Amino acid sequence: MQLTETHRPTLDQALEAIRTRAYWSPHPEHPKAYGESAPTDGLAAFETLRGSRFDLDQPGTDGWTGGEISPYGPELGIEYPHPDVDVLLPAMRAGMGAWREAGPETRALVCLEILSRISARTHEFAHAVMHTSGQAFMMAFQAGGPHAQDRGLEAVAYAYAEQTRTPEAADWSKPQGKRDPLQLRKTFTTAGRGISLLIGCNTFPTWNGYPGMFASLATGNPVLVKPHPRAVLPLALTVRVAREVLAEAGFDPNLVCLAAERPGEGIAKTLAVRPEIKIIDYTGSTGFGDWLEENARQAQVYTEKAGVNTVVVDSTDNYKGMLSNLAFSLSLYSGQMCTTPQNLLIPRDGITTDAGPKSYDEVVADIAASVGGLLGDDARANALLGALVNPDVKARLDAAAGLGEVALPSRKIGNPDFPDAVVRTPVVVKLDGARKLWEGTDAEPAYLSECFGPVSFAVAVDSTADGLDLLRRTVRDKGTMTVGAYTTSAETERAIEDVCLDESAQLSLNLTGGVYVNQTAAFSDFHGSGGNPAANAALCDGAFVSNRFRVVEVRRQA
Amino acid sequence: MQLTETHRPTLDQALEAIRTRAYWSPHPEHPKAYGESAPTDGLAAFETLRGSRFDLDQPGTDGWTGGEISPYGPELGIEYPHPDVDVLLPAMRAGMGAWREAGPETRALVCLEILSRISARTHEFAHAVMHTSGQAFMMAFQAGGPHAQDRGLEAVAYAYAEQTRTPEAADWSKPQGKRDPLQLRKTFTTAGRGISLLIGCNTFPTWNGYPGMFASLATGNPVLVKPHPRAVLPLALTVRVAREVLAEAGFDPNLVCLAAERPGEGIAKTLAVRPEIKIIDYTGSTGFGDWLEENARQAQVYTEKAGVNTVVVDSTDNYKGMLSNLAFSLSLYSGQMCTTPQNLLIPRDGITTDAGPKSYDEVVADIAASVGGLLGDDARANALLGALVNPDVKARLDAAAGLGEVALPSRKIGNPDFPDAVVRTPVVVKLDGARKLWEGTDAEPAYLSECFGPVSFAVAVDSTADGLDLLRRTVRDKGTMTVGAYTTSAETERAIEDVCLDESAQLSLNLTGGVYVNQTAAFSDFHGSGGNPAANAALCDGAFVSNRFRVVEVRRQA
Repeated sequence: MQLTETHRPTLDQALEAIRTRAYWSPHPEHPKAYGESAPTDGLAAFETLRGSRFDLDQPGTDGWTGGEISPYGPELGIEYPHPDVDVLLPAMRAGMGAWREAGPETRALVCLEILSRISARTHEFAHAVMHTSGQAFMMAFQAGGPHAQDRGLEAVAYAYAEQTRTPEAADWSKPQGKRDPLQLRKTFTTAGRGISLLIGCNTFPTWNGYPGMFASLATGNPVLVKPHPRAVLPLALTVRVAREVLAEAGFDPNLVCLAAERPGEGIAKTLAVRPEIKIIDYTGSTGFGDWLEENARQAQVYTEKAGVNTVVVDSTDNYKGMLSNLAFSLSLYSGQMCTTPQNLLIPRDGITTDAGPKSYDEVVADIAASVGGLLGDDARANALLGALVNPDVKARLDAAAGLGEVALPSRKIGNPDFPDAVVRTPVVVKLDGARKLWEGTDAEPAYLSECFGPVSFAVAVDSTADGLDLLRRTVRDKGTMTVGAYTTSAETERAIEDVCLDESAQLSLNLTGGVYVNQTAAFSDFHGSGGNPAANAALCDGAFVSNRFRVVEVRRQA
Repeated sequence: MQLTETHRPTLDQALEAIRTRAYWSPHPEHPKAYGESAPTDGLAAFETLRGSRFDLDQPGTDGWTGGEISPYGPELGIEYPHPDVDVLLPAMRAGMGAWREAGPETRALVCLEILSRISARTHEFAHAVMHTSGQAFMMAFQAGGPHAQDRGLEAVAYAYAEQTRTPEAADWSKPQGKRDPLQLRKTFTTAGRGISLLIGCNTFPTWNGYPGMFASLATGNPVLVKPHPRAVLPLALTVRVAREVLAEAGFDPNLVCLAAERPGEGIAKTLAVRPEIKIIDYTGSTGFGDWLEENARQAQVYTEKAGVNTVVVDSTDNYKGMLSNLAFSLSLYSGQMCTTPQNLLIPRDGITTDAGPKSYDEVVADIAASVGGLLGDDARANALLGALVNPDVKARLDAAAGLGEVALPSRKIGNPDFPDAVVRTPVVVKLDGARKLWEGTDAEPAYLSECFGPVSFAVAVDSTADGLDLLRRTVRDKGTMTVGAYTTSAETERAIEDVCLDESAQLSLNLTGGVYVNQTAAFSDFHGSGGNPAANAALCDGAFVSNRFRVVEVRRQA
């Protein structure tokens, strides 16, 4: 493989991008960019996988398991190898020495080759992501394809940069006055910690999985991929590509293996506390994330958990732009993004806008109308909403209507291609955010828990200042992946920034165009901060990679 | 203050040094380098402190406490403020906003000014370190002065480099085909996590304390310094200097405060779980280190705990050099360094040397003779050994003689200047390291526990290969700060390196001159690896600083 010629320029560009944080991506967003036959080929490849046994030729296979059902209805009917952990884990460690010796650059370039082959199959991955996450095709294509690959590449770039901060060798000569200097020859080797476990999620198997997977692999660790049982295929495909590339590059393919689980097995809990597992990446519920942090003490644990995302609505000079921007944010993938706004904090006495003063009721009604308008056409609604990923989301949506006055009811939408898909528009519920309801009381209003799915709360706060206090409490106690705010006041803007700086929350201000609070761009935006309860790590920064390896020094008298 | 003119060049040199890892230090090692009157002035300053109240003018003082007794005999008689934590912690947070706004460069330069003022008072600090740690004067001077300052500066350099990897602002413009590009203005601010707690140790209050203290301060966090009750003075002086500099530079002096405890109070346990404490640096016993890691879940916890340091003796082409190098390593500061070798693994059938083959008994006898020779002169012995830091060390030393055949008994040495000092030469005890005694059995031979102090075990192993297996088990299960090895075989050398790379241990090979396994140089050597049970962090690398702050992004439509 011509790894250096092919991929070193891309690595250099990625290194430059994470330094400047300007826009950059080597992975095209448009489906047409992948060649004329790519759409047909990708769909055909996906259809071939259905109803088959997904063999990975990995050691320690103890039967077969599967059972994915697309949120769009069809059963995928794919069987994956179930691991005999006692065989698989030692086999995964066997190739670590050679992978360590390869050094940071070769590891990075091998990772880039894996990403590049995944990129070439983006159409196939898009169908796999669509039929496991319930994302609409275009979103599955972009978020599950180029955006996920970007995040993987970003992690590789950070890993490479971090590992090469220390030189491979150094000559050290310490003057001793009139005597000869003390002289040592020192070598520095980056050594992985051990097997890294990726616990995948249902909604964004590749986007949330690639950063940890590639960060660990690039820093010298074998990676065991434990997908969500409802979203195995995108990561199984990833494992297959990684194994192919590793073997072709002369490394042990068992450096990347799959651990698919039997229904109800809960294999993540078993794997997470195995002594061989030294790193864990997890996206999912707060409950299991907390369990991992408390129990997997032998491992470095990186978690993205639940959060209560908040938008502060204080004032705007582009009321229409604000409404349409918010409507899109609430609707995209039926609110099933960890970054979707949940609480819209709106002053009880209304806000000032370029369209005149608007009362709380007016603002809520206008947001509702904006969402209604955006999703009025069923074809467009289907393309934006996708399907509900699982019955829990639907149950939460149904229950949400009982929490308060419904400003916008959820609407059932039919999908002509997939009649079994559960497609729903978001519900907007009015709630009272009076200070007395959340301050100094043990009672927790509904809006202080994450209600994952197409549910938003229009929370009436006593004032913007009170809203900022509620924001602070929300971030500090519940965590948040995103904060949005609309204000025309420099003073209020500063106050919102201060809350976000104090409590470590990522802030988007006055978005009224084609960028949405729930989207982040690799190489430029941080996803999460790692500094509040929603996540203990950010994608991607030095801290995300620096503790996945250690530098071992050997010094010899020169 | 002319911070930039004075300190930016030093910061740049430090940044270059951690990149090249060549020898560098701005802090002279020789006492004469500090000016003619420095020795007298330093001693006088120290004497003035004795028997006085050490006022820091910090808020929330709830009485006074003290009681340090020099390991050399005299009571120091100094009283320190005892904190009212409920008052002190909120006061420490008050200055965080301005400290954050100052930015990484100003914070780094303020830290350099603090270090520079400490450096100017190195003689005074040397007496403070000597009379709390029991180190001999020259060691207290060097390790407690320039070497500690180097480690502090190194942490500042890492912190600065880490924080400036992301620019303060970026313009992001994403092409949209024929439409206008999406444009955002992004700002990135490094924000400290909260109050950082430094839990100091008895033996190296400044050397082990400065890295965490300066890493946290430079990354925007207030630092609460909780010294070991027997070694308050060096850190109290440090806190005083830091407060002076902060105030002069226009920042809140309460960004650095002292928490001295009452006898038996165990205030660290109370402080460690306070919600305001977000970072903890700790050096000390494994028991309390493990407790911190398990219980201080709200904080990032950096620990250096016990380890079982090991030297593998396989063969040498410089037998004399090896003996004298080992003798020095075992003797320095009475073996009370976390890096002092404890277990010397020597093949039962002897080793090959340039002085002919040597049996196990001969090697042990020659090491004993070399230590005996090195410490034969009482004045020289006092200068090397210092005093035992506390009665526990003496108790362990006394008990060690009962563990096996004593190859070199410990000798009591009188100190003419300090008749109450407890000065002892190291004991060397022969133990059987047969594989059957440590493999596959729950029984733990004495050499598999840390016996902190002037105690070394000459462990007879069945072969070098068996010794390497024992080394692997030792590092994996017990942890190690240092591994040393002597071998003339390239194959054996490679095997030792592999163990150290696999288990994350720092290795010194064939040291026979003036560099010792127990000494590391800032800017070049890593202290610990952070990858085995002896410590979860290395001094100093990216991982030591990167999670002490978070990057908060604010993005606005451009």
